[in-house]
Amino acid sequence: MNTTEDRKTQASEWFAVLRDRICAEFEAIEDELSPEIAARLPIAEDLCDVTPGRFERKAWHREDDGPAKGGGGVMSVMRGRVFEKVGVNVSTVWGEFSADFAKQIPGTDQDPRFWAGGISLVAHLRSPLVPAVHMNTRHIVTTKAWFGGGADLTPMVPDEADTRDFHAALQAACDKHDPDYHGKFKKWCDEYFYLKHRDEPRGVGGIFYDYLEADWDADFAFTRDVGLAFLDVYPKIVRRHMAKPWTAEQRQHQLVRRGRYVEFNLLYDRGTLFGLKTGGNVEAILMSLPPAVAWP
Amino acid sequence: MNTTEDRKTQASEWFAVLRDRICAEFEAIEDELSPEIAARLPIAEDLCDVTPGRFERKAWHREDDGPAKGGGGVMSVMRGRVFEKVGVNVSTVWGEFSADFAKQIPGTDQDPRFWAGGISLVAHLRSPLVPAVHMNTRHIVTTKAWFGGGADLTPMVPDEADTRDFHAALQAACDKHDPDYHGKFKKWCDEYFYLKHRDEPRGVGGIFYDYLEADWDADFAFTRDVGLAFLDVYPKIVRRHMAKPWTAEQRQHQLVRRGRYVEFNLLYDRGTLFGLKTGGNVEAILMSLPPAVAWP
Repeated sequence: MNTTEDRKTQASEWFAVLRDRICAEFEAIEDELSPEIAARLPIAEDLCDVTPGRFERKAWHREDDGPAKGGGGVMSVMRGRVFEKVGVNVSTVWGEFSADFAKQIPGTDQDPRFWAGGISLVAHLRSPLVPAVHMNTRHIVTTKAWFGGGADLTPMVPDEADTRDFHAALQAACDKHDPDYHGKFKKWCDEYFYLKHRDEPRGVGGIFYDYLEADWDADFAFTRDVGLAFLDVYPKIVRRHMAKPWTAEQRQHQLVRRGRYVEFNLLYDRGTLFGLKTGGNVEAILMSLPPAVAWP
Repeated sequence: MNTTEDRKTQASEWFAVLRDRICAEFEAIEDELSPEIAARLPIAEDLCDVTPGRFERKAWHREDDGPAKGGGGVMSVMRGRVFEKVGVNVSTVWGEFSADFAKQIPGTDQDPRFWAGGISLVAHLRSPLVPAVHMNTRHIVTTKAWFGGGADLTPMVPDEADTRDFHAALQAACDKHDPDYHGKFKKWCDEYFYLKHRDEPRGVGGIFYDYLEADWDADFAFTRDVGLAFLDVYPKIVRRHMAKPWTAEQRQHQLVRRGRYVEFNLLYDRGTLFGLKTGGNVEAILMSLPPAVAWP
């Protein structure tokens, strides 16, 4: 096995391991909400069944799966009592970029072939007091090879401690690798997750990075640390708020804020538009959309 | 007053007259639902208040309103007991197209100035048995001058009579003017209101036309007839179903189908993307989005 192939395997294996650890942690959170507390929360009005949610997995394969073009992924979706809808997708796909897209992708001028592996997560919570969250890391190989990804938090009812802890966890992961990373990647995140038509940010940000290709081992270690930082901090934020009751007004506010999430993903998100316009798996790509939304 | 200015005035006045007639008809529909029937429908669960809805009007003006660039519009929105959310917007705006957009617009190679007037309507009904509908007609003036528009129906629970009557009304309006119009404009509509990523149509279609510039008086008369055909047929379809009870499953199906409406408008709709990317009035443009939506 040559180095590139070995690296693809290592990256794919890591994304699956991280998926397993995240799913286990989120299921543990579902279990922790005691039946007494669950019955007192407004979810009892929406749900006949307030038993803990469990992830369901569904594999998909690209059409014409083969050595020149193919691959697929596994969607893991949980519709629970804390997590109203959370999707954790891993995928490994390869093929050739069309001439149009190749222009936008490094390392494709001589050879349009690509390989891409990654993990992508979006969580929408029942409680408007728990922020929605997005996390994605990926490894792309053309004639170049790089890592990209990030994580960002979308509180519905802002909470200073959540924002502070989320940024601190990502900063610690960044600082371990390069003192310049956090400032640069936080700024990139703020610029990226921005609704230009409304002149407002999607949430409180986090980090966003791409084209990291200086040193494969260091870049892969950083990418793993971003996943681990997310796995450490986000469950803390969920546990902090999940047992608190909320009001109908807060729920309505959450449904309206979720509309902004939809607007961002369908109008601006590169991954969403890229996937939809290149015949990607629609169900996996649109897993990010919230379960219930309002434009009143 | 020269001919072009007089024509702009005539077109704008018509769009406002049509708006008034549609709003009056929709308010009459709200009144017709008897309190006894309204109390038996599932809306009684969602609404504390099942009194008839009324349109609220809100004017907006473009920044830097003046002779070189300016204008504005009036949004009319009703949140009622039959019409869950219906927006009827009229607008009259003028200015200069940016170089990028000018390329896509006829008659702008020598002179980037434009004038645009129109009416745009989207209705989302409480009952999943009543189709959602969209209607828009417009007059655009650059160094050329043309009419465009159309109407299309989006049933949530398909009904053959609705589809047949809707198409028949638009066909009658078309046939009065040109025997080729209906076939051509129905096909254009089917091609336009299509969700490529899902390989499915948005609804059952209607007509879509643009760049009609052969004979101003005839084209204006046709555009008025499209508005009148809509005003005649759509209220009939609403009245046919509005007093029928529906099930929770039908409502949920409606919320999911509305997600497709959002996907179309944010991913493909020319008017929406054009408006959002050129600093249009966000509230008026996104008035088309449904009040409650689900991606379960």
